[in-house]
Amino acid sequence: MARRSRAKAPVVRNVNYRQLRNPFPPMEVFSADEAAAMHETALRSLEELGMKVLLPEARALFAKGGARVEDEMVFIGRDMVEAALASAPKSIHCRAGAAKRDVTLELGSLTFQPGAGAPHATDLTRGRRPGSARDFGELVRLTQHFDVFQMVAPLIEPQDVPVELRHYFTLETQMAHSDKFPFVFSRGTPQVMESFEMLSAFRGVSAEAFEACPHAYTIVNTNSPRTLDIPMAQGLIDFAKHGQLAIVTPFTLMGAMAPITVAGAITLSHMEALTAITLTQLARPGAPVCYGTFTSNVDMRSGSPAFGTPSHFQASLAAGQMARLTGLPWRSAAGSASNLNDVQAANENQMGLWGCLMAGATVIIHSAGWLEGGLSVSYEKLVTDAEVLNMIAELCGGAKAGPEEIGFDALREVEPSGHFFAAAQTMARYNTEFYEPIVHEYNNFGTWTERGAQGANERATGVWQRILAEGKGPDVDGDKLAALQAYIAKRSAAGGAPPES
Amino acid sequence: MARRSRAKAPVVRNVNYRQLRNPFPPMEVFSADEAAAMHETALRSLEELGMKVLLPEARALFAKGGARVEDEMVFIGRDMVEAALASAPKSIHCRAGAAKRDVTLELGSLTFQPGAGAPHATDLTRGRRPGSARDFGELVRLTQHFDVFQMVAPLIEPQDVPVELRHYFTLETQMAHSDKFPFVFSRGTPQVMESFEMLSAFRGVSAEAFEACPHAYTIVNTNSPRTLDIPMAQGLIDFAKHGQLAIVTPFTLMGAMAPITVAGAITLSHMEALTAITLTQLARPGAPVCYGTFTSNVDMRSGSPAFGTPSHFQASLAAGQMARLTGLPWRSAAGSASNLNDVQAANENQMGLWGCLMAGATVIIHSAGWLEGGLSVSYEKLVTDAEVLNMIAELCGGAKAGPEEIGFDALREVEPSGHFFAAAQTMARYNTEFYEPIVHEYNNFGTWTERGAQGANERATGVWQRILAEGKGPDVDGDKLAALQAYIAKRSAAGGAPPES
Repeated sequence: MARRSRAKAPVVRNVNYRQLRNPFPPMEVFSADEAAAMHETALRSLEELGMKVLLPEARALFAKGGARVEDEMVFIGRDMVEAALASAPKSIHCRAGAAKRDVTLELGSLTFQPGAGAPHATDLTRGRRPGSARDFGELVRLTQHFDVFQMVAPLIEPQDVPVELRHYFTLETQMAHSDKFPFVFSRGTPQVMESFEMLSAFRGVSAEAFEACPHAYTIVNTNSPRTLDIPMAQGLIDFAKHGQLAIVTPFTLMGAMAPITVAGAITLSHMEALTAITLTQLARPGAPVCYGTFTSNVDMRSGSPAFGTPSHFQASLAAGQMARLTGLPWRSAAGSASNLNDVQAANENQMGLWGCLMAGATVIIHSAGWLEGGLSVSYEKLVTDAEVLNMIAELCGGAKAGPEEIGFDALREVEPSGHFFAAAQTMARYNTEFYEPIVHEYNNFGTWTERGAQGANERATGVWQRILAEGKGPDVDGDKLAALQAYIAKRSAAGGAPPES
Repeated sequence: MARRSRAKAPVVRNVNYRQLRNPFPPMEVFSADEAAAMHETALRSLEELGMKVLLPEARALFAKGGARVEDEMVFIGRDMVEAALASAPKSIHCRAGAAKRDVTLELGSLTFQPGAGAPHATDLTRGRRPGSARDFGELVRLTQHFDVFQMVAPLIEPQDVPVELRHYFTLETQMAHSDKFPFVFSRGTPQVMESFEMLSAFRGVSAEAFEACPHAYTIVNTNSPRTLDIPMAQGLIDFAKHGQLAIVTPFTLMGAMAPITVAGAITLSHMEALTAITLTQLARPGAPVCYGTFTSNVDMRSGSPAFGTPSHFQASLAAGQMARLTGLPWRSAAGSASNLNDVQAANENQMGLWGCLMAGATVIIHSAGWLEGGLSVSYEKLVTDAEVLNMIAELCGGAKAGPEEIGFDALREVEPSGHFFAAAQTMARYNTEFYEPIVHEYNNFGTWTERGAQGANERATGVWQRILAEGKGPDVDGDKLAALQAYIAKRSAAGGAPPES
C-alpha cells in the first residue's frame, strides 16, 4: 500500500482531539415522568431527611441561605436548590497553560481524564507498587502526550512525598510537564490557597484575573449516604470563593452506600450533588461547578465493587437525565474492576465509556488506565484505553458524503471484480483517510508470530516507554518555573502546609 | 453479602436474552440529503454501470424482469429495485427447533451470531489448528448454551469432512445439538435441496409448511466490486424459491475492493445488496431476504484488513441509514483483527458492536469469537464476548423507576454515613437485581493473586470446558434423529452431493 510520492513531504493527518463535541444521540433509561419523580424525591429528601454537614462554616452558609439546621443536620428547601441551579454557570471556560488546551465545559462538550486517585501504580516491567513521585511524574507526562486527555487527573497518590509537601510536588509536576487544565486536591484551606497562589504566579495572572475563570479544578466526593465531610465542604467553599472549578462526585455503590436500584441510587446521588452545588452558590453565586455522579453496583458474590456492568451503564444514563434537568455540565466515570489489563479490563472500561457517552457526560473520568476499581493505574492500560478514546474522538469528527466522497467516478473507474488500490480517489486520500492506531496492529498471524507474537498489552509497554524516552513536553517559561521552585523550597523549609483546615 | 434464606429455594434471576428489541437510539453519520444522494448514486450505478452476473439463470431472471443484459453485464432499472423493495417482507418470522427459539427479524429487533466462516479454530489448551468436525460440533454446543446467540452461525469450516458430505455433517450437528435457527451453506443446488429435505423431515413439516416461512438461512456475499458469482446467485434463487432466508452481505474493505471513503464504500455495497435483493424477488416475490453490509477499512501500514475502527463504525451507521430507506431487516458485523484474544481483540469487537447497535442492525454477525479478521474462531473469545453480549441484552431489558425503585423509604431507613446492606429494599432484591457475570470476576488483588492470578482469557477456558463437560443440549426426537442419520448414511454411501450446481 505504500505509494508515497518521494518528492513531497509526507502528508500528515490533521485531527483535533482537543475540543470535542459529543456526536452520540442521548439515551434515556427512564421516562420523563420517572425522571421527574426522582428529582422530586431528591428535593423531598433534602427537605425532610436532610444532609449531615460536618463543617460548621458550611452549616452557617446553609443557615444564612435559609436552610433549617439541627445539630449537624441541614434541611434544604427546594427554593434554595432552584436558586443555586439558576446562578450556577451553564458553560464554563477553563484556562489551561496554552490557549489551544483550554476546554469549555457545557452540555454537549466532551472531555476525558485518565484514571484518578489510585494508591498504586502498575506496569509490566516494574510490577504493582505503591504510587510514587516518579510514577506521578511519568503518568502526567503520558497524560500530556495524548491530546484526547484534555484535563490532568490526580492519577496516583505519590505516597513517598510527605503529605504536607505533596501539593507542592503535584502542582510543580503538572506545571513542568503539562499545559493542560490542572487539578488541585481539596486538602484543607492552607494547601488550596498555596496552590492557587503558585498557579496564578506561574500563569502570570493577577488575583482578579485568576478568579475571573477557572485555572484549576478539584473533585469533591460526598460521603454517601447523605453526609458532606469537612475537607470536601471546605474544598467546595474555597474553590467557589476563588472562582475555581469543583466537580461534584457522589461515589456510590448500589446495595452498599446507596440503594440497590439504579433509580434509588441516582436519586440519592442527585440529592447529594444538589447539596454540594447549592453550597458553592451560597459561597459565591455564579461559582463554576460541575454536576456529577459515579454509581455502579457491588458484585453480590464477592461483595466487591463491579464496574462496566449493565447497572453502571444504566446509572450513567439516569444521571444524564438528572444532569439535563439541572442544565449544568457534568461528569460520569468509566473504569474497570479487573486486577490486570486483560479482556475483562478492556470490556468493562469500554462498556462504562459507552454508558457515559450515550448519557451525554461532559467529563468522563477514569476513562483510561483504571484497574482494580481504582486501586491501581496501569501504564499499559492507559495506552490501550487511549486507543479507544482516540477512536471515539475520530467519531466526533464525523464523515462527509459529498459528491467527492460518494465518488461515482471511482465506481465507474474500477471494473467488476477489480480493485480500488490505484483508483484516483484512493490515491488522493490513502494517506489521510483512516485513523492511525497507537497500539493496535494488523499483521497476519504468520508475520505476527515471527515478530514475537506480542499481545496489545505487551506492545503498550513499548509505547509508553518510547513516549517517556522521547521526553517531549510543553513549552515552559524557565523563569516562572524557577520562581515556582524557589517558592516551594522556601515553604518546604518552613514545614509545608497541613492537609487540613 | 450472602444472606440467602435457608428455608427457601434460591431465587433465580429471570432474564430473556432470546427475543431482544434494540433500545439504543439510532445514530446517523450522514444527513438525510447525503443518504438520499448515496441511494440515488447506487440506483444510477445499477442503471449505467451495471453488475456482472455470472449465472445464466440469474441473468435470465433479470432480463425477464426488464433489465438490460449485455453479455454478463446486467443493467437494472430503479423501477425493478422499487418493486423488489415493495414485495420483500419487512418482518420475517423464523422458525427454530423450539417455539421459544423462534426469532422475528424486522427493523427494531436484535439478534446476535458468533463468529462465522473461519478456516481455523483456536483455544488456549489445543492451540490454533485447521477447523475440524470436532471443533464445529463443540462450537455449535457453545452457541446453543448462550441464549444471547439466537442463530447458529457457520462457525468454522470442518475441513476434515469431505466437501461432498459436509452439508450432511453441518446439518446433523445443528439438529443434534441445537434448537436454534440454523444455517445452510449455499454450495450448489444439490446440497441446498438435500439440506431442505433433511430439515423439513427433521422438523416434521410438509413441503408446503416448510416453504411458508424460513426454517433456515444462508449468507450470500457479493464479489465486490459489482460482481455476483455463480454459487451466490444460485443460493439467492434456491433459497427464495423455497421461502428460505437469504442474508445479503457485500463484504468490502475500503481502499481495496471498495472506494476508500465510507460514503463510496457503502454506496457500492448498497448497489450490490439491491441487486441481490432484486434477484430474490424476481425468483419469488415475497421471498424472505435481509439487507446487509460488512464494510471496514484496510490498514494502510500493512495492507491488512482492520476491524473495530472508526471507519468500520461509521460504515455500520451509514449502512443503517441505507437499510432504513429499504425498510428491510438487515445485518451488520462486529469482529476483530487481532491474532489473539487480548485487549485489542476485546476493544475492536466491542467498538464494532456499538457501531452495529447504534446503526440499528437487526442481525449482528461475528459478534463473538472472531479473530484475525475471520481467519480463526477462538473458544475463549466466544466466551468473553458473550459476556459483553449478555450485558447488552440486559440493557435491552431496561430498568424501572417506580415508587418501589426510587424508594424514599429506603432513603429514610438508612442514617447518614450508614449502609444499605440490610435495608428492606436491598433484602428484597439482592439476589436478582444485578447481572450475573459469566467470566468477569471481582475478587480483590490479594485474593485474586492467591487464587492463581488468572486473566479473563484463562478463566474463559474453564468456562467453555465446563459447558462442554456438562453436555446439556436441546430435547431431540430420537426417531427423527435416527431417520436423519439413516438418510445421511444412504446418501453418503452414494457419494454425497457436489458443492456446486
